[in-house]
Amino acid sequence: MQVIKDISGMQAISDARTNGIRIGFVPTMGALHTGHLELMKRSVAECDYTVVSIFVNPAQFGKNEDLSRYPRDLDKDLELMRPLGVDYVFFPTEEMMYPDGYKTWVELSEISDVLCGASRPGHFRGVATVVLKLVNIVRPDFMYMGEKDFQQVVVLETMLRDLNLKTQIVRCPIVRDENGLALSSRNEYLSKDEYIRALGLNRSIKITRDMAKTGERSVLAICSLISQHLLECNARIDYVKIVDSNSLTEQVEVNDQSRLLLAVWIGKTRLIDNARVLLDN
Amino acid sequence: MQVIKDISGMQAISDARTNGIRIGFVPTMGALHTGHLELMKRSVAECDYTVVSIFVNPAQFGKNEDLSRYPRDLDKDLELMRPLGVDYVFFPTEEMMYPDGYKTWVELSEISDVLCGASRPGHFRGVATVVLKLVNIVRPDFMYMGEKDFQQVVVLETMLRDLNLKTQIVRCPIVRDENGLALSSRNEYLSKDEYIRALGLNRSIKITRDMAKTGERSVLAICSLISQHLLECNARIDYVKIVDSNSLTEQVEVNDQSRLLLAVWIGKTRLIDNARVLLDN
Repeated sequence: MQVIKDISGMQAISDARTNGIRIGFVPTMGALHTGHLELMKRSVAECDYTVVSIFVNPAQFGKNEDLSRYPRDLDKDLELMRPLGVDYVFFPTEEMMYPDGYKTWVELSEISDVLCGASRPGHFRGVATVVLKLVNIVRPDFMYMGEKDFQQVVVLETMLRDLNLKTQIVRCPIVRDENGLALSSRNEYLSKDEYIRALGLNRSIKITRDMAKTGERSVLAICSLISQHLLECNARIDYVKIVDSNSLTEQVEVNDQSRLLLAVWIGKTRLIDNARVLLDN
Repeated sequence: MQVIKDISGMQAISDARTNGIRIGFVPTMGALHTGHLELMKRSVAECDYTVVSIFVNPAQFGKNEDLSRYPRDLDKDLELMRPLGVDYVFFPTEEMMYPDGYKTWVELSEISDVLCGASRPGHFRGVATVVLKLVNIVRPDFMYMGEKDFQQVVVLETMLRDLNLKTQIVRCPIVRDENGLALSSRNEYLSKDEYIRALGLNRSIKITRDMAKTGERSVLAICSLISQHLLECNARIDYVKIVDSNSLTEQVEVNDQSRLLLAVWIGKTRLIDNARVLLDN
């Protein structure tokens, strides 16, 4: 496993590939958890070589967000990756990625401004821009991403398709801990009490699926009950939505394409979770 | 010379290249003139194969601009190209480039909103986006562009650098007709009287250089005189500026980096021209 700290070094490796070699890529902000490691394992299993990037991207954090306190521990991250068969770790600096005079940004209309984009203005602009840069540097065939950041996956799939890039996103299922909490680097911020309250997210998914299984199709009815449950967990709700999983537009009635998307604040920590509503599809 | 009308056909050709093969690319909107042909000749001379795209990009035209009357004549364009040694002509449709649900746009801060970007809001967003798409489809090593669209060249160089693309722009000098008018597909719109008035643009460059040669360094003094000259030609001035040729910021005093940029309306036709101010650099 080789750590590469400069862009031209990473590009030299991409340039040296021969036709037919499949490059797998896992972009991360470090603070790795089992969810990240599962993405890497799958890439290693499916591709000829695997690149993992670690870059806490300032462009996707808002002014009052947690950029400065976001967990960073390269040595621990490398230790976790070492047994997995990852070939290259790309670890650039902010100055390399956004040098003086940097001016270019990728914007996606409609799907960037709703849901997480509504409460985090500019977030998906930052995500889309950095991923486009990383894709241009690494030139992967497959990019492995977790469905926990569901909107992110939809935004990036749209960007890659619109810009005629050949990189394909491989969507990987959410990894949860033994109590059902979706793994996130931000879970580190939670106190014990907050952790217990955060379990309301996964319970909300179960409640939604149970309602749907018994025939409930009204998005309003489901979201009202879920909101009530989350408030009882002492969560501050950012949004509780059921949307079409392709267009991210809000639905009135549940159908095969319905996805429940949740975002809440537990204390000072913002957490998200999501799930398909109807299971037998 | 092969005409390719679909994106995947063009991508198959880019994919089939082997290492070390240099691809030259000339993006155009058709209505070819000698300026375009010079770009193609240079690409053919310097690269292993040359791709020319012809696409009248709706995204770079404003609502009240000349998209519908922009000259289109594929057969004539192909005839002009045939003797030059161009290998591939990429000729996609609007529906292929911007299919239903298209959402992704490239924006550049600062340099897109001044000069032509100030009078044509969204223009450089459209230019940057379509060129990024074309670059991703053709994957050229070198992209040949005329300095007539000086701001466009600066915007696209910035985009390619910021997004870590390896395509390099080869800047080619402005080609002028026997009376000094910079070649442009829009010159077709000019009546005889308007053509004569349009020659004021090139005369403005000569006046500027003469003033600079005799020691004048005040941008205000030069631009005042040039504006007066253009008004005497019955041109409606969009802008008369002397800017730093890298940052496009306006200067107060002429120096080695000074570039005169002109945009005027002659009747209903918008024309631009530009030149380095100090010649002996």
